[in-house]
Amino acid sequence: MLEISCQGRGLYDISREVDDWVNKAGIHTGVLTLFVQHTSCSLLVQENADPAVQHDMERFLSKLVPDGDPMFRHSSEGPDDMSAHVRSALTHVSLNVPVSQGRMGLGVWQGVYLYEHRTHHMRRRVSLHLIGE
Amino acid sequence: MLEISCQGRGLYDISREVDDWVNKAGIHTGVLTLFVQHTSCSLLVQENADPAVQHDMERFLSKLVPDGDPMFRHSSEGPDDMSAHVRSALTHVSLNVPVSQGRMGLGVWQGVYLYEHRTHHMRRRVSLHLIGE
Amino acid sequence: MLEISCQGRGLYDISREVDDWVNKAGIHTGVLTLFVQHTSCSLLVQENADPAVQHDMERFLSKLVPDGDPMFRHSSEGPDDMSAHVRSALTHVSLNVPVSQGRMGLGVWQGVYLYEHRTHHMRRRVSLHLIGE
Repeated sequence: MLEISCQGRGLYDISREVDDWVNKAGIHTGVLTLFVQHTSCSLLVQENADPAVQHDMERFLSKLVPDGDPMFRHSSEGPDDMSAHVRSALTHVSLNVPVSQGRMGLGVWQGVYLYEHRTHHMRRRVSLHLIGE
Repeated sequence: MLEISCQGRGLYDISREVDDWVNKAGIHTGVLTLFVQHTSCSLLVQENADPAVQHDMERFLSKLVPDGDPMFRHSSEGPDDMSAHVRSALTHVSLNVPVSQGRMGLGVWQGVYLYEHRTHHMRRRVSLHLIGE
Repeated sequence: MLEISCQGRGLYDISREVDDWVNKAGIHTGVLTLFVQHTSCSLLVQENADPAVQHDMERFLSKLVPDGDPMFRHSSEGPDDMSAHVRSALTHVSLNVPVSQGRMGLGVWQGVYLYEHRTHHMRRRVSLHLIGE
């Protein structure tokens, strides 16, 4: 289990923490499953070279799923409450990444991100499970 | 394999059926894979406390992917035919959930849903596969 | 590892190549994990009977995520650069499919597609991992 402290909305690169966990698990080849135990943040594999990609992704989602949209009834935790649930549904609560040589077999430009959709500080839990040998 | 009888469009909570299946499988710790054998319904992990969340999710998707949009050519089964395929693409045909102590390791507010995108009665098949010990 | 040669944007049916790989792996029952090592193409399970479905999916995504949208900063590789990353985020970088009797346990109308989001020729890598017996 990873615990991630998020300072508001945005993409948090967790690739290093995940690779450290994989390395300690002592499994050389297999499949890693990541799962967020929340419905207002999510997982995303994205380009890790140009920070503008994260900026653009956020602009796109902010426009697609406006905070406080009057069509939403569920707003008990604020205008970013229901939009966060929708953003989570459009991205990923679970993710699988192949593992080889004791680390994630990502492409050259890929990073694994926790995407926090709430606008204020949150502590998030990502469960990890590795099957292999 | 689970068989789910859906009475039209909407989110069907299958968490209990899935946990029953996991419990009978006799595996304590591992990873569960769910897979829908259809392209007009999908899987979603969502908030299970406030029914308004399901209502809002549906309103969002109905607006984002209008039934009978004139840009769609594929309409042989009605105005909800192609929109159902798009909704399926934007959500999830497969899903992984870690299993511990013989049940899904969901967060406190998470439920596993079959999201039916067709507007009339459908019987749906969800295949389950559990790897662990 | 599969290598796919894509001639521009669109859905490429890789079901046969994947089933051939599964067949050679000599595993009868299990779970197959597919993972694309890129952030501007993705994986999709979709209807494989009517080619209009692929046409309509593409029209929907082209409208939802316009190439060259002025709100995007990241455009170093052209107007289809950032839109490809967003399309990838809205679809799937990883996918799981149950395997039984030595092949993917797809529904009758399901195919597995590599969705190329860039508009020009690309070579893509899909890593495959099969766990079972």
